[in-house]
Amino acid sequence: MMIEDKHFNKSTDPNLLAKKLVRINLSDIAAMGAVPEGFFLNIALPKSKAQLWLKNFTAGLKSDMKKFKLKLYGGDLSSSDKIFLSLTILGKTNSYCHNKNYTKSNSGIFVTGCIGDAGLGYELMSNDLIFNCSTKSKKKLIQKLLLPEPRLSAGKKLLNYAEFCTDISDGLLEELSFIAYQSNKQANIFLDKIPLSCASKELFMKNKRKVNDIWEIILSGGEDYELLFCLSKKQKLDKNLKGISKIGYFSSGKGVRIFDSKGKEFKTRKFGFSHF
Amino acid sequence: MMIEDKHFNKSTDPNLLAKKLVRINLSDIAAMGAVPEGFFLNIALPKSKAQLWLKNFTAGLKSDMKKFKLKLYGGDLSSSDKIFLSLTILGKTNSYCHNKNYTKSNSGIFVTGCIGDAGLGYELMSNDLIFNCSTKSKKKLIQKLLLPEPRLSAGKKLLNYAEFCTDISDGLLEELSFIAYQSNKQANIFLDKIPLSCASKELFMKNKRKVNDIWEIILSGGEDYELLFCLSKKQKLDKNLKGISKIGYFSSGKGVRIFDSKGKEFKTRKFGFSHF
Repeated sequence: MMIEDKHFNKSTDPNLLAKKLVRINLSDIAAMGAVPEGFFLNIALPKSKAQLWLKNFTAGLKSDMKKFKLKLYGGDLSSSDKIFLSLTILGKTNSYCHNKNYTKSNSGIFVTGCIGDAGLGYELMSNDLIFNCSTKSKKKLIQKLLLPEPRLSAGKKLLNYAEFCTDISDGLLEELSFIAYQSNKQANIFLDKIPLSCASKELFMKNKRKVNDIWEIILSGGEDYELLFCLSKKQKLDKNLKGISKIGYFSSGKGVRIFDSKGKEFKTRKFGFSHF
Repeated sequence: MMIEDKHFNKSTDPNLLAKKLVRINLSDIAAMGAVPEGFFLNIALPKSKAQLWLKNFTAGLKSDMKKFKLKLYGGDLSSSDKIFLSLTILGKTNSYCHNKNYTKSNSGIFVTGCIGDAGLGYELMSNDLIFNCSTKSKKKLIQKLLLPEPRLSAGKKLLNYAEFCTDISDGLLEELSFIAYQSNKQANIFLDKIPLSCASKELFMKNKRKVNDIWEIILSGGEDYELLFCLSKKQKLDKNLKGISKIGYFSSGKGVRIFDSKGKEFKTRKFGFSHF
């Protein structure tokens, strides 16, 4: 679901909105190791803006339907005071899909891509003055928020291989703490192993007094839509898998512990995003 | 989709709302002649009311899931200012499903159940004083609005048999005029053939000066969720199909024409419901 004034606002480009709606759903398909097939789409929007808005939305939708080879199966259209979108995507797996939220062994913790860009992009979009940041980097961070890249290829390659796989939609710490709780394990992660983009590295450089704030956003900010998965100690990372980082490991214990480069524990107040 | 202040309001019982959401989707399955399997459910609602509301909603949902043997595949939950619900149901057919909106021959027009109760229930719920009506009849008409009965059995029996089949969600005239337009035919229907409930008959008796208003609501009011289908002249109605009425026939021509018991044409201003 994507809801006006919750997930986006009036000024959000409908073209990008359509793509994001498709991609956050594709990210779920990626996390299952499945191949996307098609989707059902529900749109509710105010009469006044329907025509132009739908034209732009449809253009974005068509473009990503082509890019990801998706069918539109059907759906519903209604008027409403605010824009409300819901998309249900269906995908196929040959045999089974990823066990989503459980680790049995003291396995290594891995992620795809860079972590925290979408969260930083969100903060910069909401408050221009929160951090010193070049226009270029700001644009890149916001781009990650508006147009995530679903990790379909990685998700599929990890089938039969990763112990579990999930996508990071509500923040790295939120996902890790849930898995730690479900598995009755402790997640240990290391700040200097967290993969950062050039843009977020620039933010650290230009905002030395706000280093902790930036880390909190990176660790807790949602909407990265990268994959988070585990490999047992015996298993080595497949060479065909590119852009993967090992950020820590599970051990006996509880909850999530974060360590900086000096081995000192990093304490955070924020803990991901929850609607309730 | 069902949206607060569009399809229902704050005071609507969440238990009944869950059932209606399931049933309007089941009605689409019935119109296809399919057997329902399961559904995806998206719920957005204000934090303040989440707990109690969800408890009641879930009770209604569970009850209808059992009644109609449905699985809940998954879905999404979000906070929002107003309640927004969307449900995507999946069903199976053995071979093919109903051709939805097209008639080739000058075939007979049939409906299941009684027409117009939901529309009358809506008017009575919105304005207590619009018609003279006993408490019992008012309750029955509103009940049809709040808790429609999906015609799954009839829809399935009509496979391989009816020329087309659709459910009446936006009013009888709206559906008929769409089919007439698609088929390049004229739909002729007869007021004295329209199946009426005891409650709507009572309304005619007690509101003799408003007979035309009542007919307009019956013909144009939405949410009956009865099936509308065609049989060619050669085909006789299967005896296993109960509660079916022939209300008219298609002929060459255009649009929808309505005739009263004296053969006089009935003209209506209203023409079903459209969101846009």
